[in-house]
Formats: sequence, structure tokens, C-alpha cells
Amino acid sequence: MEQHPAEASPVCAEIDLWAQGETAGHLRVPHSRNDSGWGTIAIPIVVIANGEGPTLLLTAGNHGDEYEGQVALLRLARELDPAALSGRVILLPAMHDPAALAGTRKSPIDGRDFNRCFPGNPHGSVAEVLAHYIDTHLLPLCDAQMDLHSGGTGIDILPSACGHILDDEAYMERSLAMADAFGAPITLLLKEVNAGPTLLSAAERRGVVALSSELGGAGRLNPHGLAVTERGVRNVLKHYGMLDGVPEGERSRRMVVPDLAHYVFAPHDGIWETADRLGAEVRKGERAGFLHRIEEPLAPPTALAYGAGGLLWCTRGPGRARAGDPVAVVARDL
Amino acid sequence: MEQHPAEASPVCAEIDLWAQGETAGHLRVPHSRNDSGWGTIAIPIVVIANGEGPTLLLTAGNHGDEYEGQVALLRLARELDPAALSGRVILLPAMHDPAALAGTRKSPIDGRDFNRCFPGNPHGSVAEVLAHYIDTHLLPLCDAQMDLHSGGTGIDILPSACGHILDDEAYMERSLAMADAFGAPITLLLKEVNAGPTLLSAAERRGVVALSSELGGAGRLNPHGLAVTERGVRNVLKHYGMLDGVPEGERSRRMVVPDLAHYVFAPHDGIWETADRLGAEVRKGERAGFLHRIEEPLAPPTALAYGAGGLLWCTRGPGRARAGDPVAVVARDL
Amino acid sequence: MEQHPAEASPVCAEIDLWAQGETAGHLRVPHSRNDSGWGTIAIPIVVIANGEGPTLLLTAGNHGDEYEGQVALLRLARELDPAALSGRVILLPAMHDPAALAGTRKSPIDGRDFNRCFPGNPHGSVAEVLAHYIDTHLLPLCDAQMDLHSGGTGIDILPSACGHILDDEAYMERSLAMADAFGAPITLLLKEVNAGPTLLSAAERRGVVALSSELGGAGRLNPHGLAVTERGVRNVLKHYGMLDGVPEGERSRRMVVPDLAHYVFAPHDGIWETADRLGAEVRKGERAGFLHRIEEPLAPPTALAYGAGGLLWCTRGPGRARAGDPVAVVARDL
Amino acid sequence: MEQHPAEASPVCAEIDLWAQGETAGHLRVPHSRNDSGWGTIAIPIVVIANGEGPTLLLTAGNHGDEYEGQVALLRLARELDPAALSGRVILLPAMHDPAALAGTRKSPIDGRDFNRCFPGNPHGSVAEVLAHYIDTHLLPLCDAQMDLHSGGTGIDILPSACGHILDDEAYMERSLAMADAFGAPITLLLKEVNAGPTLLSAAERRGVVALSSELGGAGRLNPHGLAVTERGVRNVLKHYGMLDGVPEGERSRRMVVPDLAHYVFAPHDGIWETADRLGAEVRKGERAGFLHRIEEPLAPPTALAYGAGGLLWCTRGPGRARAGDPVAVVARDL
Amino acid sequence: MEQHPAEASPVCAEIDLWAQGETAGHLRVPHSRNDSGWGTIAIPIVVIANGEGPTLLLTAGNHGDEYEGQVALLRLARELDPAALSGRVILLPAMHDPAALAGTRKSPIDGRDFNRCFPGNPHGSVAEVLAHYIDTHLLPLCDAQMDLHSGGTGIDILPSACGHILDDEAYMERSLAMADAFGAPITLLLKEVNAGPTLLSAAERRGVVALSSELGGAGRLNPHGLAVTERGVRNVLKHYGMLDGVPEGERSRRMVVPDLAHYVFAPHDGIWETADRLGAEVRKGERAGFLHRIEEPLAPPTALAYGAGGLLWCTRGPGRARAGDPVAVVARDL
Amino acid sequence: MEQHPAEASPVCAEIDLWAQGETAGHLRVPHSRNDSGWGTIAIPIVVIANGEGPTLLLTAGNHGDEYEGQVALLRLARELDPAALSGRVILLPAMHDPAALAGTRKSPIDGRDFNRCFPGNPHGSVAEVLAHYIDTHLLPLCDAQMDLHSGGTGIDILPSACGHILDDEAYMERSLAMADAFGAPITLLLKEVNAGPTLLSAAERRGVVALSSELGGAGRLNPHGLAVTERGVRNVLKHYGMLDGVPEGERSRRMVVPDLAHYVFAPHDGIWETADRLGAEVRKGERAGFLHRIEEPLAPPTALAYGAGGLLWCTRGPGRARAGDPVAVVARDL
Ligand SMILES: [Ca+2]
Ligand SMILES: [Ca+2]
Ligand SMILES: [Ca+2]
Ligand SMILES: [Ca+2]
Ligand SMILES: [Ca+2]
Ligand SMILES: [Ca+2]
Repeated sequence: MEQHPAEASPVCAEIDLWAQGETAGHLRVPHSRNDSGWGTIAIPIVVIANGEGPTLLLTAGNHGDEYEGQVALLRLARELDPAALSGRVILLPAMHDPAALAGTRKSPIDGRDFNRCFPGNPHGSVAEVLAHYIDTHLLPLCDAQMDLHSGGTGIDILPSACGHILDDEAYMERSLAMADAFGAPITLLLKEVNAGPTLLSAAERRGVVALSSELGGAGRLNPHGLAVTERGVRNVLKHYGMLDGVPEGERSRRMVVPDLAHYVFAPHDGIWETADRLGAEVRKGERAGFLHRIEEPLAPPTALAYGAGGLLWCTRGPGRARAGDPVAVVARDL
Repeated sequence: MEQHPAEASPVCAEIDLWAQGETAGHLRVPHSRNDSGWGTIAIPIVVIANGEGPTLLLTAGNHGDEYEGQVALLRLARELDPAALSGRVILLPAMHDPAALAGTRKSPIDGRDFNRCFPGNPHGSVAEVLAHYIDTHLLPLCDAQMDLHSGGTGIDILPSACGHILDDEAYMERSLAMADAFGAPITLLLKEVNAGPTLLSAAERRGVVALSSELGGAGRLNPHGLAVTERGVRNVLKHYGMLDGVPEGERSRRMVVPDLAHYVFAPHDGIWETADRLGAEVRKGERAGFLHRIEEPLAPPTALAYGAGGLLWCTRGPGRARAGDPVAVVARDL
Repeated sequence: MEQHPAEASPVCAEIDLWAQGETAGHLRVPHSRNDSGWGTIAIPIVVIANGEGPTLLLTAGNHGDEYEGQVALLRLARELDPAALSGRVILLPAMHDPAALAGTRKSPIDGRDFNRCFPGNPHGSVAEVLAHYIDTHLLPLCDAQMDLHSGGTGIDILPSACGHILDDEAYMERSLAMADAFGAPITLLLKEVNAGPTLLSAAERRGVVALSSELGGAGRLNPHGLAVTERGVRNVLKHYGMLDGVPEGERSRRMVVPDLAHYVFAPHDGIWETADRLGAEVRKGERAGFLHRIEEPLAPPTALAYGAGGLLWCTRGPGRARAGDPVAVVARDL
Repeated sequence: MEQHPAEASPVCAEIDLWAQGETAGHLRVPHSRNDSGWGTIAIPIVVIANGEGPTLLLTAGNHGDEYEGQVALLRLARELDPAALSGRVILLPAMHDPAALAGTRKSPIDGRDFNRCFPGNPHGSVAEVLAHYIDTHLLPLCDAQMDLHSGGTGIDILPSACGHILDDEAYMERSLAMADAFGAPITLLLKEVNAGPTLLSAAERRGVVALSSELGGAGRLNPHGLAVTERGVRNVLKHYGMLDGVPEGERSRRMVVPDLAHYVFAPHDGIWETADRLGAEVRKGERAGFLHRIEEPLAPPTALAYGAGGLLWCTRGPGRARAGDPVAVVARDL
Repeated sequence: MEQHPAEASPVCAEIDLWAQGETAGHLRVPHSRNDSGWGTIAIPIVVIANGEGPTLLLTAGNHGDEYEGQVALLRLARELDPAALSGRVILLPAMHDPAALAGTRKSPIDGRDFNRCFPGNPHGSVAEVLAHYIDTHLLPLCDAQMDLHSGGTGIDILPSACGHILDDEAYMERSLAMADAFGAPITLLLKEVNAGPTLLSAAERRGVVALSSELGGAGRLNPHGLAVTERGVRNVLKHYGMLDGVPEGERSRRMVVPDLAHYVFAPHDGIWETADRLGAEVRKGERAGFLHRIEEPLAPPTALAYGAGGLLWCTRGPGRARAGDPVAVVARDL
Repeated sequence: MEQHPAEASPVCAEIDLWAQGETAGHLRVPHSRNDSGWGTIAIPIVVIANGEGPTLLLTAGNHGDEYEGQVALLRLARELDPAALSGRVILLPAMHDPAALAGTRKSPIDGRDFNRCFPGNPHGSVAEVLAHYIDTHLLPLCDAQMDLHSGGTGIDILPSACGHILDDEAYMERSLAMADAFGAPITLLLKEVNAGPTLLSAAERRGVVALSSELGGAGRLNPHGLAVTERGVRNVLKHYGMLDGVPEGERSRRMVVPDLAHYVFAPHDGIWETADRLGAEVRKGERAGFLHRIEEPLAPPTALAYGAGGLLWCTRGPGRARAGDPVAVVARDL
């Protein structure tokens, strides 16, 4: 496969993306600070390549408080035997490194949600410059891409692969095949609100077969989600013939979140007491939970109901919710 | 019982602490803001009183991101029938209201950890003024006091009542009897580091029979912890003869965390992958987990071991830990 | 009237913009927070519609510390009888809700001045996303639009309708007719500095007859300005035949602020002691006031003079001014 | 008069407090900054002294957003003829200089409300160090002291001298005589909440005849309040025989704010629409105004009523109030 | 020379750019603040013009913590005799005034590095609006332009003129001739990383002969760098025949920093102990210094080596470096 | 030597302060964070002990941006052979670890200048708790103590040992003997402004022979200062007979800064252009330099003069000074 000519970027890769074997290093992104005009941010990158085969980009730490993917890719980087591979895996285990170091969704440097930065800008903030580099220098090298997310601090989600519902059926089939191989309990297909600026959309614009995912959440490292992720990334390698063997695990349940009626939003700030655990089957009109206000101690809590029935796929993580926060999201079978 | 003469405080109680029946209102704490020189903070307070009997102070929201107690006391305030009561219950369901509204351990107003503010200061910051009022105006009214905590955002803890190991055995017995009545799965006795500035220590200095507690954590509202708490506060009322009936539930297991060897601290920043779930029995020298650094992607994670064996009583909540954070605390039977 | 096809926006209207009668709800704008990845901001919106007639968009809270319009539109929403209406009124009483809740000109979320955000950006910050939605989804529905401002915290202004001086005379006449109907004491016509990114300019680009306004200021709710506003919005409805009756009140005085010579700027930080009250007739070269520096207590204050004569239309609100702040703006008759 | 021995303070007076004639300079307060370990804050001070007579301390800028006193004392410093004086006037026209430069009530340096810092601390923050110096080095030199305040950004107040109700009647008489001389329309006597840490209380502890005042507010420089202040400070000099002549102006109306029932507090955040103008006579139970919430556009505003009748002495300045803010304070005749 | 038609800008020049003699004033840039909606920033500008001749733009304070150019241009503005001049000099001695007043590289207003803002945006933040004005209103007037930098707080650099390596040889020759005239000890030619958004690149896009420079650093005012700068700006005037005489000083050494191998980056945070002083000749592979970590007191420091030999042209200024900071940059002769 | 009984402290030493040989570890200071309620700060500590002899405490990183001492003590910790020692050295190479990690004078955690925190407070902020531990647990173990400072970011100082002028002559002689041994070019004796809260004063209150020092500054690691420091700490060990040999180096010049006339303070913000280099001999009344204001480009700079003659011992580091900053300090021979 040839290198695509790429737009100029201020980012420098300190490793050779075409080297055989395992190469680890950093992408160096300029970051002008008051106390370091020529400062840089070093984004960890690992390339494992051997012989012929597809190029797969695996990313984690798009949001800094989503941990299953970060640990899974760090482990894969240490444990994958280059000799066993056919093709090339590019790993960004802590892609949005400033957020990952902070353990926060958004970067403390520029306040940006990295998954709202694509296709990026070579003269923008650190997050925009990095997004532009990934879009112009890495995605063109790839046949497939998977971005490992979880719900982050704010929400807890059943481990799922996530893909977009697209008009190009053949292309969408390839994404679904990759999701089947990944083998999460659920595959969620979405018309993501504001999808344009995500890495998933950027990959699709480049014609790369691409998936996102939600592998846990609530700000913690979910052991079950981690196991799903570690198995899943190897399953994808097998699916593409890059590792020997066939994908392991059960059949993934294909679901959708069709519209806003499947979301329960907090109408005001309060403490959310959920009526159901994640994974429960719920009915439209049933009580989703109570939202407690502390200001007037004898006022009754606000009871909220589900606007649609299905599987309780996502719940608020922290006890306290702000006005406008989703406290429950219901998925239904496709 | 007579009112104790109290030190002057700038806090005004807008309710009558001696009224019979149920009274709800606020404590008004002055808070000088740039845009409101005579601003105030209104701390919700509920008093339920009927006839003769002891005075019990129940508090929650000492730390704003600890939710079981807040919800349990709001529910108790709404559901407790004054006619069924003998004595007086004073409820502060969101005691450190600025932190509780923010859903953060410490107050966004003055950055203070309220449980490090006792005995307070009538001319200090909002937290100090409020601590001083509670110490000088509420604790002197009380026979017993229980402060409902959880681990907050940073740590997850097995539901436990917590008391101090004290030299005065008769007094300590009364605390233990109250803990037995509360009926959490565990009663943890501690020589808390830095105990002096806590509400528990303040209550002890006033001769009030007092307990703290840890009823969940990791920033969420723990349904099991909430059930323990709701049952526990009614158990305490029964224990004091303020409600009819006998305390319900199983026998509480008395434990201690004897020294720093029972803590595992993160030696550097990283993502903590625990080897064991909360509640596991662990052995000294076994691997407690891996601390993953993202900076150098091929560097092996740091393996940490338990310094003492026992019950894994407390674990780090969020996936990312900072240098110096406890990632595991082990308790052993008394 | 048909719906115009609109650009994709991540904003969801939770109400039906075409419903008859009175409908109240929210526009839901995605807002990714560190503790709520899928958080949203709910912008209050009210639609009152009945039968045939024009569509009028009334907005307030473009700047969060400008109150006359917010109160007037909340009152109009509660008091306007749908049965008395012919046409459709769309009300955004707290359009830039994050700023309005904070009581600050700019949003605490993204630091943006909402009236510098048009035509917006569907992938930008909260303010930009909302501006884009209003520009692409609401303005195309409208025949006329009026944005209710005041001077905000920083400046105090005589109640005025404000319009742009435009090349299209027929179009400008329609704006002036609407201003005459509104009936503020003054109608100020301006070539606003940096007008391009305002809602007024956005409306003009869409061919909507549009006005801005300045109905008080200095951070307070001006009772006279509120009365002018409440009467004015009903006058506009009458002007368009949407309510019965004719506009009430006196003739509006048409004025201009021709150039920078009509501004007095503070050359350095200091306390501004104005020589004249708002509404005074002033002469070129007369003393506008003293700017007092506190650093050197015996240094004389800096005397500033008017660069042009006319009506003292706007003065600094707070006592302290920063270098570069306008402390006086003079208008003259057209 | 001899210098009193004073406690050690890190503050250095760069002027001779005993010089005859007019001397202007600064008090130098150490302020360790990250970029200036030995930095200092220079507090402007003016001493005007001539022959025999009392020492009077006049202070303004205790809160940085209260302007009448700052301008009046700067003018007095420039215009008072030392030859016309008998005694010594010490002027601190911008006493809490960091707050005065910022135009904010509290200091941006340490976040302190200076009028909550007395008696101060020689090893504390900048505000505490300065308060300690004033308490230990300036107050002991004085026979009388007056601190010129206004309501600041948050509240607007009828021009008033303010004194404490004290047990020592002879001493209180001297304060009232000084207030009568000052000649504000109102003299308000208060048991100030949290009075202990104010400059007024510090002066009283030192046996200095002392007054505070409220000369306007709402963050602006009130022309009427300024005129009252400029006349008032000269009246006080005449009262003490330090200037020739007799105090001018009308009789001051003595009033009190007896208890919390005379305050109307906002029960939640909202826009405050007052029913009455400052200075109105109001009745208990009448509507004080409406508090408008923007979150639910059709919800009616919260109507608040006066808890006591009298003179509407103080109102909220900015349009938006926070929960707990006083929106109205009623005074009644003594 | 005629004025080029320029794009609309919200910036107003309060001086006549075509006046003869010396004119000093400000560029007024709108800056909406919460407490001043119509606030402005005043950028100091001086124009000195006499008769026929080229137009030269000299700028300093692009980064606020770079002082040699600011002092040199302030002195030039005061001391240059208009009668001795042929042509026009436009001076912006504190071009990015908000950063220059703060003494920080980036602006405290919008956090922008001004030299990453070109070609700017008339509706953007203060820095973007100003960059757009300079690009559209000042650069088109100029024949030549020189931007006076230093390393700022973070790095210390040998006094150098800096130019870009360009494809247009004739044009590049003119830049080099100007650099030779300026007469810094070194002329550094660079393919600057991320050059597009700099003022130098903007000038080149406009066809203006242009240079940047590095005249010291480490956050201080370097006396040697100041002398080089003061002589250099007069040399450039002589070079263009705008002042009589010939450029003074020694021959400038032409150097390059060819690639990232000439940079030494800190791999982690620590205290940097350099092995060599600025200006040393260093060899590839030699130790550049030690990076000391304080966390583990007995751990050896990290030794870093030069990746290429040459002249030690730039070193880290502050003792502490962050991961990714350049601690040494080596230049080699062209 | 026996351990003194010490006040209770929440700080835990994780090393045995009485162990023989070399022991390295940490002091663990509780630090309650919003995301880690039981978080801790680990302060690095090294103890090297062998046989009989005095106990010497050497500290650096009291201010985080002062580097000579930090590097010297880290090197001493690695290189000192325990077998060569007689007695005990306790090293805190980064004593105020939060500030040292940040490279800032004050801690980003609590904003405290650690050298203004003694004698500390066991229930205060992190800095106060640590100061209390050092005062109560470490100083009582010591015979002598030396705290290694420099001027930090804000000022540059000639390498000097610093001691207090004390009434107890015998005690002061022992300090001077230690300073002579240390062998810095200068020994400065001072009545430090605000000395009470420094570590030096704390040591004196404990009867420990104690010195402070200033070994460079301007935020950098000064190679000459580092050499003086590395030699000096070994000289002190030799002086106490803890290492063999006699102190090396030249005689130290004893100087004083008698009063404020020896300081030159910036009267306003500006860029400081010094007339003299550090170490120059200067005369009273001579020009110390120019303070340039950028606001009015043609205004002449402010010329400042020395108020006393002597050695220019200290100068402002950064180019920009704030009002009240010392820009020059002159020392004269004792
Ligand atoms: Ca995510
Ligand atoms: Ca807790
Ligand atoms: Ca406005
Ligand atoms: Ca005040
Ligand atoms: Ca620069
Ligand atoms: Ca120091």
C-alpha cells in the first residue's frame, strides 16, 4: 500500500510508520505555553507490522476518562507478537493524551472534547491540530479503524460496539461484520447527534471501515468491559486475517436508540435515584426513578418516566445530575 | 432538656428547634459575594419532635458527592410520622449545602473539606462558620449523632458504620451499641488520621454518642448502601426508644484498619486495574493490581502488592489515580 | 407557510413549532461536560399561534445581564391569549440561557458573547451551535424579528429601539415602521461596529424585518425600560395586525451615533465621576467628567471632554472603568 | 500626643504619620507572588496635620466597589487646606487597595472581604496583614474614625450613617453625635450580623468613637450619595472643631433594622422585579416583588411579601438574584 | 503610494497613518467584557513619516514576555527625528498589548499565542481581530517588515535575525540583505514548524520583505540583546535609505536548524541541568545535561544527549522543564 | 540523642528517622481532593546516618522555583557515602513538593508560600500541616539546619548565605561560623520583614543553629550558584566534623540590607531596564534604571534612583515588573 500524499501538519511522527516489527514512540504536537513557547505534547503511538495485510488503526483515550480501551491497547502493545501478525496495527492507546493524563473527558489545555474536533485544523488548538493529523496522515493509511470508548465519568453503558446507520449498504455491511467479530454483547447502531465532528465520521469520510464503542463508564475501569475489549480487539485482528483463528464469544445483539423519546433527561439539578439497574428491560411510562432536590427538604422528589420501552442501555453515573443530563437511555432491538 | 447557652454565631436558624411536630426550614449562613455583599447560604434543616425522649442529630452531605445519606434523610423527613416518635430528631440532609449542590466533596465557595473544619470559627469562611454553629448550637442539644458518609467520588467502600477507638470504655460501648443497632454489614473502628477536625470528633468532645459511616462511594448512589442506610437510621431510632420496635438486620462485623501497611498507595499517576473486587479476602504480598502509565506505551505497568491481609474494604473509584492516592484499603477483624 | 429546508443541526426542538395555541418547551443543545458527556442545555421556547398571519420572533437574554426583555417576554408568554392572536409569535425569553442563568453578558460555558456568534457553527461551542440553529431553523420561519437588549452591567442607555442603516431603502423603511410602532422614546440607527456577527445582521441577511434595542442597563431591571418594553412588544404585534388595536405611546425620536468622536473612552483605569446624567443635552468640548486614579492620592483626576455634542445617550454603569471603556456616548438627531 | 507602642507588623509606612502639613505616600504590605517573591502592595495614605486637636481616621475602599467614599476622600485630600485644620486627619481613600483597583467587593488576591478580617493577623494573607496594621498602628492614634461604605454591586441603599447599638451609653452618645453631624438623611443603628470582624467593631474595641455608613450602591457612583459624603466628612471635621463652622444639612432620621423579618430573601435564583422603589414606605404582608425563573417559561413568578413594614431602605442592585440574596431590607424608626 | 482597499475590520485607527511628522495614538479593538459590553483594547501605534521613501513596519510585543524589541521601539519612537527620515516607519512597540501588559507570551484575554493567529478573523477573539487588521490594513502599506522577538520566558536564544527559507530566490535575497543589515550575531534560516499562522508568513503572503528575530529570552530584558536590537533597527532604516549612513556592526553568521534531531526534548518533567552554556560548540552524542526528578530522591537523573552537533543556539530558560519541552536546540552553519 | 515527644500530626513518615546507613522514602501528608478524599502528598526524604555525631537538616524546594538547592541535595543524597559520615543528615530536597513539582514559588494546591507557614497547623492546609510536622517532628531532632533558597522567578541574587541578626550573641556566633564554613561569596545578615513565619525563625525558636540562603534566582538553575551550593553543603558537614577535612573556598563577605532605603520599588507596572548588572557597586542617587510603560508610546520612561549606595545584591528577574515589586536591592558591608 502506498502512502497518500498528506496535507502539511505541524505534528511530527518520531517513529517510522512503515517499519516492520514493533516500533513505539510519539507524535509530537506543538503546544505554545506561557512558560514554554516551543513546548510540545508527546502522543504515544505504537506500530506493529509484519509482511502483507491490511492496516488497522485502534484508538483509545479519545476521552481521557474512558479506561477499558487504554488498558487493552497498552496490553496489546506489550503482548502482541509481531511474528504472529499479517499486516499492520497502529495503536494510539492514549490518543488525546492531555485528557488521558488528566483523567477527564475534555482536555485541560484547550477545553475541547476531542471527538468534536474532526476533521481538525492544522492551525487550531492542540486538539484540533492532532485531529487534523490523524485525519490527514493516519486515516489514509488504514483499511479499518476502531475507536474504543466508554461512557466516561458521566454515564454508565452496557459494553457495546457502535456504528453509524449509513446509506451505503455494502459499506455498512463491512462495519457490521467487524462489529460481529468484535463480539460485544450489544452492537448499537446510531444516527449520532452531531456525528460530523467525530473520529468515526472522519473515518467514514475517508472510506475506512470504522466503528466506535461504549465499553463501560461511570469513570471507572470496568473489569467486564475490559475483558470484552481485550477479546474484541484480537477478534477484529482475526476477522481481518491479521491473526490466526476465528473470533471468539457470543453473538452480538443489534440495537438502536431511535429518537429522543428513548432518553430520560433531568429537568432540573438533583440526586438521581434510578428505579432500574443497567440492563433491565423497561416499559414506556414506567417510573425511571426519582430526582431529589435538596433545597426544600420536604418537597417530594420529581418522578421521571420512560418515554419508550426496551433495554436500559445507559444510566447516569454520578449520583448528582444537572438540568439537561440524560439519566437513562433505552435501546430497542433493530 | 434545657438549651445550653451557646457562643455567638452569625448563623440564624429560621426554624424553632424546640417546636413539636415536623418543622422544616433553613439555617441562614452569611456569605459575602462580590455581587451580593449581604448574601446568605440557606442550609436545609428539619426537626421532628414529639413528647419526651432523646435528641438525635442525623447529618448527610458533609461531603457533597456522598448520596446515600442525603436521599435517606430526605425520605425520612418526608415519611417519618411525628406522632410515632418519642423525642426529637434533627435532620441536616444536605449539611454542607454548597458542596452538596455542586456534587463535590469540597465546597466550591471556599474549597474546604467540611469534615476538616471542626470546631469551626464564627469569623471564618462559610464552611468554618457553619461548623462552628453546628458545634456550638446543635451538638449541645443532642444525646446522639450519626453522620452519613460514603467514599465519595474517589473511593468505593463496603457499607459500614464507623466509630473511633476511645479510651473511655463506657462511652465507646454506647457508640458500639448504636453501631450494632444501625446494622451495617461492617462496623469499622478507627484511629482516623487527622480525626480532630471531623464532626465525629467534635461530637465526642461534646460527650455526644456519635458515629460516622461509609455507605458506598465511587461518586454514585449505591442502591445497596441506600437500603442499608434507610434501614439503619430507623434502627437507630428504635435503639433509642424513639420509634417502636427492635432494630432489624444482621449482625455487624467489627473490623479495624490498624496501620498504613493496610493501605496500598499509588506511587505515581496511572490507570489502576484492581486484581480484586471490593469485599474480596486478600493476602499480604499478593498482587493488588497494576498501575498503568500511558506515557511510554511499551513500559510494563507497575505491579502493587498488599502490605497486609484481610478484607478488601475500600478501592479506588475512578480509573485514574494520582500519586499518593490510596487504591486499596484492607480491613481485618477486631 | 411552508417550513424551509434547514441545515442539519445538533439542536433538537422538543416542541412543535407549527402547533396552534400556546406551546412551551425547550430547544435541547448538546453540551459535553467532563462529568456529563451527553449533557444538554435546555433553552426555553414558547410558541403562540392562531390562524393566519405573520410569524414574529421575539428574543431576550441574548446577553444574560439584560433583564427588561426577559421579564417582558416571560410575562407576554403567560398573558397573551392565543385566541386574540392572528399569526404566530415565537418567544425566546432567555435565548442565551447559560448567560441568562449566570446573569452575565457572556456565557460561563464558552466565554462567548452570543451576539458575536452569528451565523454560528453546527460543530462549534454551545453558543455557536445555538446561533447556527436560530439562523438556520428559526429565522427562515419569520417575517419579523426583534431582539430585546439593554446596556448590561457595563453601560446604562436611554430606552431605544435600534436598527441598522441599510442600502435597501424599502427594507429599511419596514424596520423603521416597526420601530415607530414599538414606541421607545428613541430609535437609534447605527452602523454598528462589528455588526456582521449579531443576530440583527443575521436576520437582515435572511431578509427578515429586524430590530435590536437598548432598554436600560447598568445591570439592573429598569422599571421604566420594562414598561416601555412590555408596551412595545404588544405595539409590534398590533403593527403587524397580529393583535387588534393601534400602537400606543409617543413618537420615537430618531437619532444616530455617527462616529467615534461621539464616544468618550477612559484612557486609563479609574473611578468615573460623570458630569451629566443620562439624557442631558451636552456640548462638544464640555467636561464629560473626571476619571479618578487611586494609586497616587494627591494626583488630580483626569478630566475628559465630549468630542461631539448632542444627547447623552449612554453612560458607564459601574463606578470603576477600565482603560478603553466607553464612559459616555452621545447621540444626535438624524 | 504620644505614639502608642504597637505590635510588630510586616507593613511599613513610607510616610511620617506625625508630620505637620500634608503628607502623601503609601503603606507597603508584603505580597509574595509566584513571579515576585518580595513583591509588595502599596496602600495610598494621606496625613494632613496642623497644630493641636483630635486625630480623625477616614477610610474608604474597604470594599472595592463602593465609590462615594473613595472619590470624596481623594477630593478632600487634594482640597483640604492644612492651614485651616486643627488636629490631624488620616485618610485611606482606597484602604483595601487590591479590591479597589479591581472594583470588586473582595480582593482578587486572597478572596477576602476586608470588613471580615479584623483584628487581622500579622502572618496572614494580604488583607489580614493590612487589617492587623490598621488595628494596631492606626486605630490607637485616633480619637474618632469613620468608614465610608455603600451597598456595593449587590445592593442599593439610601444614604445613611451606620452605628452599632452598644451597652456603653456615653460612648454610644458620642457616636450618635458624630452621626448627627455627618448629616446623612438616615442614621441606621444596627446589631450587625457578624459584627466582630468589621473595622467598626475593631475601632470600638480600641475605644475610638466610630461610625460606618452606606452611601449608595448598586455598583455605581451615586451623585447624591457623593454629595452627602463630601458634605458629611467636612461636617465631621467641624463637629470635632478641626475645621471652623458648624455642620450643615438636615436632621438625620434614626432608624433600625430590628430582625430578620425585616429582610426579604430570594428563596431561589431568579430575576427580581421589585414592587417598590428605594425609599418607599411599605407595609407588612404587601407584595415586595416578583422573582422570575427563566427555566420553565410558563411557570408563574414567585411573589414575595414584606415580613415587616417601614421604609424600603435597601434593595437588590442587579436584576438577577441568587438563592439567599436579600432583595429588600426594611428599616423602621427608632 | 496609494492605500490598498482593505477588508472591513472592527478595529479603528485613532491616528492618521498618512500624516507627516510623528503621530502617536492607538488602534482601538472591540473587547466585549462581562462588565463592559462595548469595552475596547487600545494598541499603541506610532507613525513617523517624512517625504518620499519606503514604508517599514517594526513590531514588538507579539509575545508579551519578550522585552528587547518593546524597549528598543519605545526608544526609537521617542528619539527618531522625523526630519532625518525619508519614508515612513510604522511602530507597534507592544503589538499584542494584552499579552504585553501581562508580561506573558499569550493573552490573558483569549489565551491566544498571537503569532499563531494570522491571517486572523474580523469576527474572532481579540487576538484574531487584531491579526486580521494588521494583515489587511497595515501589511498592504509596507515595503518591509520586521518582528522583534526573543525566546520569552521558556527559552533563551543567542541574538539572531530569523528568516524563512523560500522558493522565490530573489525575494529571499532581499530578506537576507535586510538581515545582513540588521547585523545580529546570527541569522537563522528556518522552515518554522507551523509557520503558516505567523506574522512573518502573513507578510510573505503579502509580498512584504520580512524578518522575524530572537534577541534574547528567559523572560528577562537582555542588555546585549537590547543593544543589538537598538543598533539593528537603525541599521535596517539605513539599509533602506530611510536614514543616512551605512549599517554598523559585524557580519552575521548564517545558520539553520535542519530537523528535529537538532532539538533535545525533555522526556518527562524535571529540573534541567545543562552541560553547556548558550553559544557553546557541541558534538552529536555528547551529554546535553541531566534532567532531575524529585519524586524518588535516590533515582539517578536522566542523562540526555545531543542528537546533532553545532552551536548551542537555544536552551531552556527556567530550571524546571515539562515533558515535551525543548531543553536545547543546536544550529549549524548554512 | 533522644527523640523529643512531639505533637500529634496527621503526617506519617514512611521511613525510620533513626536507621543507620542511607534510607530514602517519603513523608505522607493527607490531601483531601474532590476526586480523592483520602489522597496524600508524598514528600521525598532521605536520612543518612552513621555512628555518633550531630544531626543536620538540609532543606531545598521551600519555594518550588528555586533549583540550586534541589539539585545539590539530590546529588548529595546519591553521592554521600554513609561510611564516611559521623552523625546524621536529614535531607528534604523538595521540601514543599507541590510547589517544587509545579516549579512555582507557591503551592498550586493551597496558594501558600511555604516560608510564611511556620509554625504551621496540624489541621490547616497541606502547607500548614507539613510546616507543623517539620517544626514539631524534625527540628527537635536537629543540632543545625540550613534552608537552600534562591531568588526564585522574580528576583536574581548574588549567591549568599543568610542569617538573622539576633540578640543572643553566642547563638548568633554559631550561625555565623556555619555561614563562614558554607563559604558563599556573601553572608547577608537580615532583620527579615515578616520573619516570624519562616523556617529559619522556626529553627531559631527551637534553638537549632540555622541559616537560610539565596543561591541565584530569576527562575533558572544558576551553574555558579549550584557549584557554591554543592561545595557549601559539604563544607557545613566538615564544619560539624561529620565529614573529614576542612571547609574549602574563599572568605565570605558579611553584609546587611539595613532598611527600605536600600530597596528600589517599581512605582507602577512596566518593563524594567536596569542601569547596572548584579554585583555592581552603586551610589546613592544614581540612576538605578528606567521603568518603561507601554500604554502611551511617546511618554518618557520613569527613571528610578538608588536610595542608598553599596553592592547591587539583588535585581528584578523578569523584564516586566508590577507596581510594588523590588527592582533592585542594595547591600552594604557590615
Ligand atoms: Ca466517549
Ligand atoms: Ca466522606
Ligand atoms: Ca446587549
Ligand atoms: Ca460595604
Ligand atoms: Ca517569540
Ligand atoms: Ca526563596
